[in-house]
Amino acid sequence: MLFTIFGATGDLTTKKLIPALYRLYEEDQLPEPFKIMCVGRRSYETDAFVQEVRAKVDGAYPDWEAFSQNIHYYTMDFSDPEAFAGYGEEISGLNLPKHGDRIYYLATAPHYFPIIAKALIDHRLLVKGDMRSKIVFEKPFGEDLDSAKAYNRLLLESIEESQVYRIDHYLGKEMLQNILTVRFANKIFESIWDHENIESVKILALESETVKQRGGYYDRSGALKDMVQNHLFQTLALIAMDSPMGLNDTLIKNEKVKVFEHLHVADEVIFGQYEGYLNEKDIPLDSRTETFVGLKVFVNSQRWRNTPFYLVTGKKMSKKLAEIVVTFKNASCFFEKGQPEKNSLKIEIYPREGIILQFNGKAPGLQAYTMPMKLDYCHMCNVVGNSAEAYEKLILDVIHDDSSLFTRWDEIEGSWKIIDGISRLKRFEPLYIYSKEEEIMKIVEERWKIGLM
Amino acid sequence: MLFTIFGATGDLTTKKLIPALYRLYEEDQLPEPFKIMCVGRRSYETDAFVQEVRAKVDGAYPDWEAFSQNIHYYTMDFSDPEAFAGYGEEISGLNLPKHGDRIYYLATAPHYFPIIAKALIDHRLLVKGDMRSKIVFEKPFGEDLDSAKAYNRLLLESIEESQVYRIDHYLGKEMLQNILTVRFANKIFESIWDHENIESVKILALESETVKQRGGYYDRSGALKDMVQNHLFQTLALIAMDSPMGLNDTLIKNEKVKVFEHLHVADEVIFGQYEGYLNEKDIPLDSRTETFVGLKVFVNSQRWRNTPFYLVTGKKMSKKLAEIVVTFKNASCFFEKGQPEKNSLKIEIYPREGIILQFNGKAPGLQAYTMPMKLDYCHMCNVVGNSAEAYEKLILDVIHDDSSLFTRWDEIEGSWKIIDGISRLKRFEPLYIYSKEEEIMKIVEERWKIGLM
Repeated sequence: MLFTIFGATGDLTTKKLIPALYRLYEEDQLPEPFKIMCVGRRSYETDAFVQEVRAKVDGAYPDWEAFSQNIHYYTMDFSDPEAFAGYGEEISGLNLPKHGDRIYYLATAPHYFPIIAKALIDHRLLVKGDMRSKIVFEKPFGEDLDSAKAYNRLLLESIEESQVYRIDHYLGKEMLQNILTVRFANKIFESIWDHENIESVKILALESETVKQRGGYYDRSGALKDMVQNHLFQTLALIAMDSPMGLNDTLIKNEKVKVFEHLHVADEVIFGQYEGYLNEKDIPLDSRTETFVGLKVFVNSQRWRNTPFYLVTGKKMSKKLAEIVVTFKNASCFFEKGQPEKNSLKIEIYPREGIILQFNGKAPGLQAYTMPMKLDYCHMCNVVGNSAEAYEKLILDVIHDDSSLFTRWDEIEGSWKIIDGISRLKRFEPLYIYSKEEEIMKIVEERWKIGLM
Repeated sequence: MLFTIFGATGDLTTKKLIPALYRLYEEDQLPEPFKIMCVGRRSYETDAFVQEVRAKVDGAYPDWEAFSQNIHYYTMDFSDPEAFAGYGEEISGLNLPKHGDRIYYLATAPHYFPIIAKALIDHRLLVKGDMRSKIVFEKPFGEDLDSAKAYNRLLLESIEESQVYRIDHYLGKEMLQNILTVRFANKIFESIWDHENIESVKILALESETVKQRGGYYDRSGALKDMVQNHLFQTLALIAMDSPMGLNDTLIKNEKVKVFEHLHVADEVIFGQYEGYLNEKDIPLDSRTETFVGLKVFVNSQRWRNTPFYLVTGKKMSKKLAEIVVTFKNASCFFEKGQPEKNSLKIEIYPREGIILQFNGKAPGLQAYTMPMKLDYCHMCNVVGNSAEAYEKLILDVIHDDSSLFTRWDEIEGSWKIIDGISRLKRFEPLYIYSKEEEIMKIVEERWKIGLM
């Protein structure tokens, strides 16, 4: 197997890709022999690059010596299509078996995606119908519906959809994978997953970080395109989709696409920008890019009539947190001593992976009071050894030609349509400047009359 | 308050009543001043009796000295109605305030119940319409429908139904009280509590003990009358009843009664007798009394169409255990890798008090397998100090005129009707002799094709 990372000097390589590849190696999941070609514009000797990577990756790497023998660095300006001829020669010289996979992982800024893809195709490094050659795109796939369509047309003129892997690493997360199991492998949840039982759904993805060094990219994107179009919409689709006829990839994606087709954004979208954003590196002084979005959406289906879905994401929050909270309606029985609290199912994605079902029981003791109880399931606690990281799972799936955790073109298309619609609204909405989480959350809570914190 | 225990030299006094009264005293729940009159046929001086009780009760009794000042012993043959005149004089001599409660607790063998009740009424120690005088019956109330009717007629000719407390201490248990809260204070459980979602319900009440010294009583009763008519049927009624219009005593009991009215016993009832029963004290050598019963019943209602309820109770089992297991149906979704396990809700009554909801989640790790997960709620773990014992709760309720955890006459009547029907079947059914739990459970499991152990 040849695994090429374009843009290998970026953070993703040391934070996610190399650790994931290392762990797969340690678990004997990588097809042997394999080479990891790290391609970047900066000039490095392989040894120096490997050393720098080793210094940056976290955790224990007992087999690093053996593993890192397979890492090579190749200096190349991948914005220049001509340079790919040289790269073709370089990898021919590796003498890898002909039948092995060739995976091209695009970890560059998104505007290089079409350039690299086209060059790979033109140099027959990526060949239509040769299912061993595959290309993996980091999100976002496109910057809006038109550009995404253009990228996609370019790709599908020359290679097959099944050679294209549009990554949304959220889908590789354990608890995202768990949503469909929870919903469809359990009669109890299957039966109550509708507007008759569910009052609202909240999907939160909060980040404590600022834009840091990514200002150039981020300012063109904003929270809407950086988080909502992919992570939050994918989460929403898994929560809101109708039951597929069977749990296979195609049937599931067909249902997910329908969610995007029937999504309706309630008028008020809440945009925020953290105080100090304008002073970050590479940010124009008059930028109105949002670092926070609150969306209230409805899914116009029989199942979800009038059920609000709240999507909230932002940077510079008090902590990093990702979770889904499904709030159920009140029980219909009349309680003389006051109505008990509503049931809720919380799916925790980060920092803990787990499920908390809150329901009411009798308070222990002589008095007949109800009180909220928590049934707690810790997903991580059942893991023997390391919990599988999203990237580890996703890279393995690319190797195994399993695209179920990758987004199909019509999902991308459907989500961009909605994002484009919201983007057009943006100029009519106020942009709230917040210095800390509480400020902007309070605005959201008051507007929607819900609790978030 | 005057609290009289008839049959005070029996086990119930030291095992349950005195500990419960003591704890209520410690928690300042007993109306002051109070006296506890312990009435028995055996001759004792109060001091000697109190000492003997103290030696027998378990646990810590820091305030025993002060508490036990209020205990008196009175020797009396309560099978002799004339003796009650003397008892009346004795308690007049206590000079308790006239407005205080007089509670008569019948902890004798059941055949004394009508004798004692009639004598109390005749001597105006229990006066119709005087709501401060109340009478409490241990179960069983009657030995069959006819005798229960006769007792009841005797009582209600002379006193009000609201002065009568038919105890079933099972109803005082925390987790029995919790059933209605779980069912009706939670939208999620309310919505799935029917034949469309529930496949079966098992109610188990296993005892490790043998009949011990109670052979004389037990042989006339058997497991059917000793356990099923009261504890198991009451549990069943709470699980199976329809939603009341509101959670008050009368409305709840109205619904419970309907369960008995619509109960249908499937043909095969499984009777067992533990090996060695015939050699126990006071047991006739040819006794065919059952020490084990397995019942499969249906509730003919819209809610429970074709849903089997399995009731299993027995003596000399491997351990003492009481629990309810609600098993849900399979989810309707098709899983390619094999159908996941069924969901279940286990309500643990003894030894642990808790709730375990078993559902399916994604197994942690790189593979997409489902695996059963447990959401566990420990009721006892939330208790500050001592968990309230059933008798403590029930005695307090008698003091407060709250009869919600006591059985109303029509509940008794409904349950005896069914028990009489089953009793008539008994002679046509085999009596399985078992030496240990596994033997008899295996017979039940094979007959009904279910798992119990």
